[in-house]
Amino acid sequence: MAVDELRAAVRDIQDFPQPGIVFKDITPILADGRLLRLAIDRFVADCEGQGIEKIAGIDARGFLFGATVADRLGLGFVPIRKKGKLPWKTASLSYKLEYAEAAIEVHLDAFRPGERVALIDDLLATGGTAAAAAKLVEQAGGNVVQAQFLIELGFLKGREVLAPHTVKSLVVF
Amino acid sequence: MAVDELRAAVRDIQDFPQPGIVFKDITPILADGRLLRLAIDRFVADCEGQGIEKIAGIDARGFLFGATVADRLGLGFVPIRKKGKLPWKTASLSYKLEYAEAAIEVHLDAFRPGERVALIDDLLATGGTAAAAAKLVEQAGGNVVQAQFLIELGFLKGREVLAPHTVKSLVVF
Repeated sequence: MAVDELRAAVRDIQDFPQPGIVFKDITPILADGRLLRLAIDRFVADCEGQGIEKIAGIDARGFLFGATVADRLGLGFVPIRKKGKLPWKTASLSYKLEYAEAAIEVHLDAFRPGERVALIDDLLATGGTAAAAAKLVEQAGGNVVQAQFLIELGFLKGREVLAPHTVKSLVVF
Repeated sequence: MAVDELRAAVRDIQDFPQPGIVFKDITPILADGRLLRLAIDRFVADCEGQGIEKIAGIDARGFLFGATVADRLGLGFVPIRKKGKLPWKTASLSYKLEYAEAAIEVHLDAFRPGERVALIDDLLATGGTAAAAAKLVEQAGGNVVQAQFLIELGFLKGREVLAPHTVKSLVVF
């Protein structure tokens, strides 16, 4: 099954980026054209029937999947970026990470009011970044219909942090 | 014509990220599903007949176009990232920017020896990053067949820095 193949291709990296963390390396999926397409097939299937009008992807690995899904569906793509990267007028949101604070931004003209948005990233961990991104999309006028991830670390309960938004993940560890 | 539409959609941002620089903002192209597809159509057309076996994209906007082209062609995608972002064993290369030094990395298992690679980024400016990325791909065993960009700032002569690699740009300013 597609999901089992994707799961098997994820490479565990011990102690990255910090001691005690097991990093889920998705580059073996990206490197295999067949697996990459399988993943995008599933992302696209999870958009079906939801009336999605725009895709928002989170800097930087969310760009890989988000732009690809946008291209498949013929939709526009909005980058959500780390602070200072977007050149025009932005909405900005600071949030707490496990060990630090971070800020993300989106262009103020990114969404039409009420536009139906799928938010895409590679990994749902504690949910801090994704929840901030969802809030930011809504600050900019978008309507977050669902948040989609290649991988969800279920034991970190990020899904609860994203509630009441719908979360769809391809592979749950 | 497709190229004229893409050119017209690029938004000039004065004095970003530094005074005196005019930044080419591509988010209006990304945000428009039709223009995004036009751009990807052209990237894909520029791959035709070149026997490309893998796409390499440069962090972070190169991920948008690179992954999408890989999906269209059914090829694998390799991310070239800023130092410290890739979790596994890497080849690394430092290079000079206009105002600073930077380093980029690629996973050591990213390419089969001699694999034919198209290198993709959004913008060719002075060519420093792209030339370093091309060298890095070759250090990791890949064969850079061509470097492709959405936008080329012709007056900065990055094309000469990338020589003898073939450069294909969609829109030249």
